[in-house]
Amino acid sequence: MIEVALFGAGRIGKIHAGNIAGLRGQARLKYVVDVDRDAAVEMAAKYRAEVRTVDAALADEAVRAVIIASSTDTHADLIQKAAAAGKAIFCEKPVDLDIVRARTCAHTVGRTGVVCLIGFQRRYDPTFVALKQRLDAGEIGNAEMLIITSRDPGAPPIDYIGRSGGIFKDMLIHDFDVFRWILNDEAASIYATGSCLTDPAIGGAGDIDSTAVTIRTRHQRLVQISTSRRAAYGYDQRFEVLGAKGMLQAGNHKPTEVLAHTAVSVSEDKPEPFFLERYRAAYAREMEHFLEAINEDVAPRATINDGVKALELADAAMRSWREKRVIEL
Amino acid sequence: MIEVALFGAGRIGKIHAGNIAGLRGQARLKYVVDVDRDAAVEMAAKYRAEVRTVDAALADEAVRAVIIASSTDTHADLIQKAAAAGKAIFCEKPVDLDIVRARTCAHTVGRTGVVCLIGFQRRYDPTFVALKQRLDAGEIGNAEMLIITSRDPGAPPIDYIGRSGGIFKDMLIHDFDVFRWILNDEAASIYATGSCLTDPAIGGAGDIDSTAVTIRTRHQRLVQISTSRRAAYGYDQRFEVLGAKGMLQAGNHKPTEVLAHTAVSVSEDKPEPFFLERYRAAYAREMEHFLEAINEDVAPRATINDGVKALELADAAMRSWREKRVIEL
Amino acid sequence: MIEVALFGAGRIGKIHAGNIAGLRGQARLKYVVDVDRDAAVEMAAKYRAEVRTVDAALADEAVRAVIIASSTDTHADLIQKAAAAGKAIFCEKPVDLDIVRARTCAHTVGRTGVVCLIGFQRRYDPTFVALKQRLDAGEIGNAEMLIITSRDPGAPPIDYIGRSGGIFKDMLIHDFDVFRWILNDEAASIYATGSCLTDPAIGGAGDIDSTAVTIRTRHQRLVQISTSRRAAYGYDQRFEVLGAKGMLQAGNHKPTEVLAHTAVSVSEDKPEPFFLERYRAAYAREMEHFLEAINEDVAPRATINDGVKALELADAAMRSWREKRVIEL
Amino acid sequence: MIEVALFGAGRIGKIHAGNIAGLRGQARLKYVVDVDRDAAVEMAAKYRAEVRTVDAALADEAVRAVIIASSTDTHADLIQKAAAAGKAIFCEKPVDLDIVRARTCAHTVGRTGVVCLIGFQRRYDPTFVALKQRLDAGEIGNAEMLIITSRDPGAPPIDYIGRSGGIFKDMLIHDFDVFRWILNDEAASIYATGSCLTDPAIGGAGDIDSTAVTIRTRHQRLVQISTSRRAAYGYDQRFEVLGAKGMLQAGNHKPTEVLAHTAVSVSEDKPEPFFLERYRAAYAREMEHFLEAINEDVAPRATINDGVKALELADAAMRSWREKRVIEL
Repeated sequence: MIEVALFGAGRIGKIHAGNIAGLRGQARLKYVVDVDRDAAVEMAAKYRAEVRTVDAALADEAVRAVIIASSTDTHADLIQKAAAAGKAIFCEKPVDLDIVRARTCAHTVGRTGVVCLIGFQRRYDPTFVALKQRLDAGEIGNAEMLIITSRDPGAPPIDYIGRSGGIFKDMLIHDFDVFRWILNDEAASIYATGSCLTDPAIGGAGDIDSTAVTIRTRHQRLVQISTSRRAAYGYDQRFEVLGAKGMLQAGNHKPTEVLAHTAVSVSEDKPEPFFLERYRAAYAREMEHFLEAINEDVAPRATINDGVKALELADAAMRSWREKRVIEL
Repeated sequence: MIEVALFGAGRIGKIHAGNIAGLRGQARLKYVVDVDRDAAVEMAAKYRAEVRTVDAALADEAVRAVIIASSTDTHADLIQKAAAAGKAIFCEKPVDLDIVRARTCAHTVGRTGVVCLIGFQRRYDPTFVALKQRLDAGEIGNAEMLIITSRDPGAPPIDYIGRSGGIFKDMLIHDFDVFRWILNDEAASIYATGSCLTDPAIGGAGDIDSTAVTIRTRHQRLVQISTSRRAAYGYDQRFEVLGAKGMLQAGNHKPTEVLAHTAVSVSEDKPEPFFLERYRAAYAREMEHFLEAINEDVAPRATINDGVKALELADAAMRSWREKRVIEL
Repeated sequence: MIEVALFGAGRIGKIHAGNIAGLRGQARLKYVVDVDRDAAVEMAAKYRAEVRTVDAALADEAVRAVIIASSTDTHADLIQKAAAAGKAIFCEKPVDLDIVRARTCAHTVGRTGVVCLIGFQRRYDPTFVALKQRLDAGEIGNAEMLIITSRDPGAPPIDYIGRSGGIFKDMLIHDFDVFRWILNDEAASIYATGSCLTDPAIGGAGDIDSTAVTIRTRHQRLVQISTSRRAAYGYDQRFEVLGAKGMLQAGNHKPTEVLAHTAVSVSEDKPEPFFLERYRAAYAREMEHFLEAINEDVAPRATINDGVKALELADAAMRSWREKRVIEL
Repeated sequence: MIEVALFGAGRIGKIHAGNIAGLRGQARLKYVVDVDRDAAVEMAAKYRAEVRTVDAALADEAVRAVIIASSTDTHADLIQKAAAAGKAIFCEKPVDLDIVRARTCAHTVGRTGVVCLIGFQRRYDPTFVALKQRLDAGEIGNAEMLIITSRDPGAPPIDYIGRSGGIFKDMLIHDFDVFRWILNDEAASIYATGSCLTDPAIGGAGDIDSTAVTIRTRHQRLVQISTSRRAAYGYDQRFEVLGAKGMLQAGNHKPTEVLAHTAVSVSEDKPEPFFLERYRAAYAREMEHFLEAINEDVAPRATINDGVKALELADAAMRSWREKRVIEL
């Protein structure tokens, strides 16, 4: 039975708390930490946990694992402290907005030898996992091209965008991770361009809302990423891999399998509304995997080094966009 | 070069005339016969053919084939005359509304030995043909159940319904033919029921517009047919075969492959509007096959005996519906 | 907090126990009862419940609800006892194989006024529920025809078939319930036929494995049901409703959204393997609804009278099949 | 009745000859010109046309239109001569491999005022046309991103590749045209990268077989093009447009609508094998449009200036690829 301290009782923290509860007999939420005390109290009550401060939670030797689901600017400090305390760490992406701090965290994790899993939940999505397994099994031969589509249903509030580190660190960081995971390959060069098309306020905040990114890998493969802050039809999360012997596509998930034939058209459900619905199964599987990493000493599917790599690509993409040129890596 | 006389310059006659023209160098429309002289003249002008009477057309020894696309009540007489004249015959379904007359025609055809193909065009539809080939090749093992869906976009005029012989002879005759063709099997019993749900005037004409038919075959297979005079979403022509090792389905055809994602749904085109669009390729292939049957002495894919069999089933279905009981065959 | 006694710790009992645990704070599994003591002990340990006899469990006034997931032959007795003890009842289908006993149970439930929900889980499936809501909202106008496809991936052991009451009571009872629920209509006549096509041993046990059923409703609608004990491609659970203004279809669910393009074809996942996977969400929703029925005094979506009605149709279908005739109801 | 001279009796010439024949009464093939005299004679015999030299064909005043379907290196000369002779011109893409010569042709066409249509047949494909009409009608609001997928089933012979002008002028020229047509917009910058992944011989010929192109338009839209010389699953011709209110996708066409459910998967036909099958309807419609352009004085849907623009983009793409940098236009 792994006892867990959870830092952050917000939207994503609630998902993780629920998933720990679902792992009845294997893990238990012991402490909830949040600067919003009401949120912490409510969650603690629901799961029979207790509210604590960071230091108090880390001081309890019975706590073997922490989940860092608080705001991005707290991640690095919490990773440092938790690693120093010898706890297994599950940290939401990104490690930090600053690559130097992120690398320092990775160094600490390496030195202390604690388990550290970064929350790239797409690596646990049943559709994406099945595609990767079939690709790795050789079903379509050697992969040649990867096309990633990643569009949110709508933009977050402008003040969030201002703090987000920009679309490349906030949204595409997932795509930069997925591409490395799917292809088992690294970027050799990157070209990123983008526009502000959905809301001038996003441009006013110094950001863009629509991007087109091209990566050439060390093995000469070609990757194209298409992202937007706004897809009127829901959360659009697809990709396709062209290989020597065929193509594999990962499509969107939809709520039901109802098909309607009318005088106008034949229609089905649009995709799931957003990440909480689309990645429900992925989040649950990710938490199971965190326990496996702790109990069975298997390497986390997404390590802190993966977190650093994705951030490096986000930095390079931002530079490419600003300087209007290809960046060699 | 086969020279052809066409009886009937209406909707379906025009299809056949166009398809003959497409068989450049293999067949030529020589005569057009129609009680509507204007229609005959117009078609003759278009294809450089001549207008003739039935007898004049049949008297020309250069004419080797006739196409009977005139009204149902003329079919039997024309078959008799054309067979007597030694012409190859392509006759639209049904042979006749009266089973005795239909059998007499079949007898004449058999006695004279002329080629006679009945216009069950579904047997030439690319989707249906591909399904049958795959079924016959053993892809899903022995066929166990067949589900046929056959729905028109809307009912014909009431006066047509009154002359049509009823829904079983007018619409389901195609389904009774398709089932025999797909399964290579014969009906052992039939149960038909139906309702008048779309327009009371159809009931007023002594007919129904919605039917559910069940056939048990000599090999114990089960066939279900679902028909309606009205499908608001277009022409619905599907079937599925369940076999020991899987299932094959034949779906509708649609005009384009556009997919629209909106805030409401993901939609594609509804099916083709009606038989002229859906069976365009089938009609062309059917005419090619008619020439093959003449030139290469291959048996027509749909013979006059198939026409008689389908009519027998339509008669049995009508009896089942009226008497509310299962009919053993 | 509703405390629950569960009768039956087998396959379906485990589903219900897990779903109660998921309703943290609203319900709690207090007692497990099973003739297989090891199964009972194991489940009790997992959920911190206790093992009891039927009578002991019912004698505890703190227990407000029972779940009957034991073998069919025990259902009627347990309903009688639980109703007498004033417990809310969730009972798996069928109420009993004997219509007289089932009616007696329904009478007792009515007299005692206890909540009684019959486990027709399809009424809670997200796809089926969405279809019904859209139908009831008038999206396709008045329903005219309903086509139900219901095929298991494979037959149960022959000795189970011998005890099952036959395919109509064992498998089609769900379809007889679904049709009434979807259409808000009752059967006026029924015709059932069938064959033994997948395994002669099923015929040897006096049963069939493939059926075709036709129901005509009081409102003249037409219903066709196609069932088989064997679909090589997985669990096939579909239906379609034709209405005056269109058609709604409920399709199968599949494990992932991977699409593979190869030199042979474009393929997607086959349907979920069986009911535990397909109806996972339905079972969870059903348990939530049971609590709503207890707490909020709403009528159960599937009452014991619905259970009786489905059984009456199964009896009529069996008679129709044996006597090869249409049964008027 | 438009009398036509056809230059080139090869694969694409045959398509055009067949389509002219299908326009019975509106156009007639009068002359066939080809350096391969046997091919010319065969085609002439089939369509009752005559074999002529270029000059003889152009000298006949009765000939109002020419179709240039000969090898690329002959296009420019034939356009010049035909324009000088006052003939309406249908010329296959590209106008020429050299942009200067192409511009000279465009100048001549402009000066002489002859009708000149360039064979960008995708502009007539029913699926693409429907998508564009719906986009122009505002169905998804303002277009923001366009993703084009364009993959051949297999590479042409290496000696053809050597003469082809490279993948950007040979394959992507269609994509460069489609993007301008769909978006009614022009490129502001282009970035092209690529690899040789399918066959080293292609690299040996100085070419690549896989490309990823990004275009930023004058209206800040983003276009991504993915091409490959090899798609094992057939001819892959898709695109999607993301707009403010939704997304429109144009999918592949397939030969039949058969769906197969097996123990392995649910599969449908792979896409049509290559352009002759996929664009059969487009080629027929294109020829009809050519006659409309002549008879009704409507502007050709694809003019010689469109041909020049596509070539300019191909040149820029080649430069971008070779110099590994973004090209501003």
